[in-house]
Amino acid sequence: MKRGRRPVVGVVGAGAGASRSDERLAERLGRLLAEQGWIVLTGGRDCGVMAAACRGAKQVDGALTIGILPSESGPVAADVDLAVYTGMGNARNAVNVLTSDVVVACGAGGPGTASEVALALKCARPVVLLAAPRAMRDFVRTLGGRSYATRSAHGVVALIRREKLLDR
Amino acid sequence: MKRGRRPVVGVVGAGAGASRSDERLAERLGRLLAEQGWIVLTGGRDCGVMAAACRGAKQVDGALTIGILPSESGPVAADVDLAVYTGMGNARNAVNVLTSDVVVACGAGGPGTASEVALALKCARPVVLLAAPRAMRDFVRTLGGRSYATRSAHGVVALIRREKLLDR
Amino acid sequence: MKRGRRPVVGVVGAGAGASRSDERLAERLGRLLAEQGWIVLTGGRDCGVMAAACRGAKQVDGALTIGILPSESGPVAADVDLAVYTGMGNARNAVNVLTSDVVVACGAGGPGTASEVALALKCARPVVLLAAPRAMRDFVRTLGGRSYATRSAHGVVALIRREKLLDR
Amino acid sequence: MKRGRRPVVGVVGAGAGASRSDERLAERLGRLLAEQGWIVLTGGRDCGVMAAACRGAKQVDGALTIGILPSESGPVAADVDLAVYTGMGNARNAVNVLTSDVVVACGAGGPGTASEVALALKCARPVVLLAAPRAMRDFVRTLGGRSYATRSAHGVVALIRREKLLDR
Repeated sequence: MKRGRRPVVGVVGAGAGASRSDERLAERLGRLLAEQGWIVLTGGRDCGVMAAACRGAKQVDGALTIGILPSESGPVAADVDLAVYTGMGNARNAVNVLTSDVVVACGAGGPGTASEVALALKCARPVVLLAAPRAMRDFVRTLGGRSYATRSAHGVVALIRREKLLDR
Repeated sequence: MKRGRRPVVGVVGAGAGASRSDERLAERLGRLLAEQGWIVLTGGRDCGVMAAACRGAKQVDGALTIGILPSESGPVAADVDLAVYTGMGNARNAVNVLTSDVVVACGAGGPGTASEVALALKCARPVVLLAAPRAMRDFVRTLGGRSYATRSAHGVVALIRREKLLDR
Repeated sequence: MKRGRRPVVGVVGAGAGASRSDERLAERLGRLLAEQGWIVLTGGRDCGVMAAACRGAKQVDGALTIGILPSESGPVAADVDLAVYTGMGNARNAVNVLTSDVVVACGAGGPGTASEVALALKCARPVVLLAAPRAMRDFVRTLGGRSYATRSAHGVVALIRREKLLDR
Repeated sequence: MKRGRRPVVGVVGAGAGASRSDERLAERLGRLLAEQGWIVLTGGRDCGVMAAACRGAKQVDGALTIGILPSESGPVAADVDLAVYTGMGNARNAVNVLTSDVVVACGAGGPGTASEVALALKCARPVVLLAAPRAMRDFVRTLGGRSYATRSAHGVVALIRREKLLDR
């Protein structure tokens, strides 16, 4: 963790295609992360795991949520406190993971999520797979780096603490 | 201004080469911006106008400061609350201006500052030149878009309010 | 394919960690792609699959090779004709796939390769997995989009032609 | 200049707003640059100085033209041989200048052109201002770095040779 600054946990996952169960999980995760005093970072768009994680976080007093958007301006999830507009399309995925001390992939995701998990490992950020399908877990394990898997939002927080993933 | 979110004012200017007077001006500006409740955004590095603007802002209770860094990780100005690591070098200048509702160029700056002023106008963000040299003011005026000039930190806040630069 | 312009085939794979067999495969692939008159694009660094694919391509008269580099300047594989310096680190992976009409992942790769495969599918570029491990094939299949697998460099060219992957 | 690779000269200037005289100058410049065997790089869009410089270059046998586009796909100037799609909007201006051994600003330009001139100087690329208005010349001179001014396309080539701007 950086001196004095609050840790940043990135939450990535499906956008418009997210299942209701992915969204419920992301909302629970966002709330738990915010309860630890951690900043919740997402891709900022107003759908799926991104919107749900921010919604969960903002149920907590003092929560701070950041959205790193692909667009130059325009829509953002309602519960994002700070909208970082990159105008870089999917290249912003690199910014998401570099800005996160830990990246949590919530649910099955899709190709965007997969790119973020891979970039995180490439950039030496630890990754937690939350409720990931088996094919994803099996593949991510082959990529090296620090990756972990768990089935519950509480498990994510426990893992981050036990493995000291926010220490630098 | 975006619905419900706090406005973001970007402060750009010289880094390592900043004069003491540029830094004093940036610190005063940062404090004044934070007193309005506005988020202060800078390039995040631990020098010059960037560091000074954040230092000024953090003298205010409830201030929030964001640094958009060129690096993938590492040093950041002490008074930055949220460090956004882009790993994009100078291409991150585009992120600085897109994320700002208004961009204030503090002092003479250098080529990096000039690129941010130009990109801001290109991306339809209003620009305030604070204590800019005449050659800079004369050139920026030829670029079109909404640009303004003033000599004092108080003048910046007055301009932003009078010209409604934070309205969308 | 774009009007009148030569098709661009991106070749991605391991860098410094590439096996000798991945490199031999990449060299053969580069030569075959160039023989079709296709431009060969890589990440441009002087190692692994990137260097080998360019080396293979430049064995062919009239070949054109492009390297999209993460750095701002400096080293590039010897057989790159045009070095595109992005200064964007791993965010340049998005440029690699957007510029390619088809992306071929050569061998096992690592997290960088995985991010490019995922980004390609996210950006609607077809992907060919060449000699990919089973865990990679199984996972990529779950991502949707147009992905194919083959075991030989000749198979890549046959696939691209049969599936008309260069048609737009 | 890089070992063995052809030098790359970036030509920047107004897009849709270019005057007929800027376009004539850019076309002449493109042809002259290509006659030296130099690769002509532009922002790739099908208008203004970008399109004209490529058109001029392609009047020469063996010319090679590169367009670095802001978009993820789609339209490109007819005379671009290689379209590099960045999907990064104006952040791609950094790629334009980093990939160029020398940057030539043709005519008055606008804020996009100004950002490229400033970024080039920031990134230690030499800049030639061709037929620039006085306010631009006066300001660019204050930015430091290697910048030059001339009134004719022939003057650009003479300057590049005399000042050895392609030597590294």
